[in-house]
Amino acid sequence: MHAFCEKLKQNRDRVGNLLCVGLDPDLSKIPDMYPCTVEGVFQFLDAVVQATLPYCIAYKPNVSFFEALGIDGLRCLERLCKRIPNSHPVIVDGKRGDIGNTSAMQARFMFEYLGADATTLHPYMGEDSLTPFFAYQDKYHFVLALTSNPGAATFEKQVMASGEPLFLTVFRQISAWHRQFENVGAVVGATQIEANALRSLDSEVLFLVPGVGAQGASYVQSCEATLNASGLSLINVGRTLLYGPDHQHLDQDIKKAIAQLTAQ
Amino acid sequence: MHAFCEKLKQNRDRVGNLLCVGLDPDLSKIPDMYPCTVEGVFQFLDAVVQATLPYCIAYKPNVSFFEALGIDGLRCLERLCKRIPNSHPVIVDGKRGDIGNTSAMQARFMFEYLGADATTLHPYMGEDSLTPFFAYQDKYHFVLALTSNPGAATFEKQVMASGEPLFLTVFRQISAWHRQFENVGAVVGATQIEANALRSLDSEVLFLVPGVGAQGASYVQSCEATLNASGLSLINVGRTLLYGPDHQHLDQDIKKAIAQLTAQ
Repeated sequence: MHAFCEKLKQNRDRVGNLLCVGLDPDLSKIPDMYPCTVEGVFQFLDAVVQATLPYCIAYKPNVSFFEALGIDGLRCLERLCKRIPNSHPVIVDGKRGDIGNTSAMQARFMFEYLGADATTLHPYMGEDSLTPFFAYQDKYHFVLALTSNPGAATFEKQVMASGEPLFLTVFRQISAWHRQFENVGAVVGATQIEANALRSLDSEVLFLVPGVGAQGASYVQSCEATLNASGLSLINVGRTLLYGPDHQHLDQDIKKAIAQLTAQ
Repeated sequence: MHAFCEKLKQNRDRVGNLLCVGLDPDLSKIPDMYPCTVEGVFQFLDAVVQATLPYCIAYKPNVSFFEALGIDGLRCLERLCKRIPNSHPVIVDGKRGDIGNTSAMQARFMFEYLGADATTLHPYMGEDSLTPFFAYQDKYHFVLALTSNPGAATFEKQVMASGEPLFLTVFRQISAWHRQFENVGAVVGATQIEANALRSLDSEVLFLVPGVGAQGASYVQSCEATLNASGLSLINVGRTLLYGPDHQHLDQDIKKAIAQLTAQ
């Protein structure tokens, strides 16, 4: 088993769930007790990380929410990545992918500079746009298959000459890449009933599942539809855990929020 | 005519070509006369910008090459964008696109923080992943249609149920978005003979054309295949102009390199 999955498995056995905490800071939403500055964002997210460590298996900061705060925001992401202990894999959600020499630069930023354990990738530009990532053997690479937004209808669900939708063609390729590289996963939106169909095509590929919580999908159903043969899946929850709990009583409130979330 | 295209047209009439200079700095390749540091990268690129201003119509820094240098590299990009005069549009090549609220954050970084005039976008996640960009009406948005790398065969050239390849389906949608939003262009690889076919489907959409120079395509043929009804196209050349000329005699050498390039 890949070291990334081994860590997830150990965490799952300890905490009893498959929650990945999405760290997408929005300056206009952070609780009043933090200053409305980039430093406030850091304090806010660091508090969330420290409070959720006993109850989750991984973290997924989305680099876009940090870059929207400018270069100081990216500095905040860099500091935050260092605050997450080695026990918990960090998926830096970047939705990257470009021609080969450019993808190599993107991978360098994600893995060598930020120290990410995994990232997310756009499939559109094809194999040579992704192999510079896959070449980081000790890292994990989640390629978009079926996303949780309405725009999945624009192209992802368009039917190919084979009779299958595009997302299925992409998923078959992800499955082939995983057999070859052993470190390729798939992003599969939890709001999509098709998750089940993808799972039945390949029992091994690890799914990263957005869409639970604020986006409307159920944690329990998402687990059922997406678990792989090793009993793993990464169920991402962001806004519900960031902005739901009362930060005056964070430890208790986070525990309660996660208990509620994982029961539904 | 959109203000972005108006500027390109004025520059074309003045300089007599459609060259967009790609600014993709690679620390391992910058000339010896610059220090091998991020500050050296800035001096190198700034020299290229000042030397090429009389001979090109736009600039395209790729954010990935700057982020590979870490946060100081992004600071270098920010400084560089400010050194490019208002006469020359700056396309910050980011290959962005995510769910709606995240795309809004990406657009904020590109347009409000870096002050880009345009960016590049992945189509995979569909309409609601792109409209937060299109909503910046005074900016321009180039969506990937057909790219210049071998990986275009993986998905872009796969045939749909309609009998058309995926890139044509994507291009038809780009064309529809352009009719609706009036600020949507297409990335069309110059190494692809299909560029001609796309042009014949829509005479208005502006093409951003990578692949000339180091990637092997001819400038003259790329222009012929991609000019729109206003006589515009953006022919991007990066490595040939960055690493070809002798920086000891940059002004003369750049002029000569561009004259050679645009004659072929």
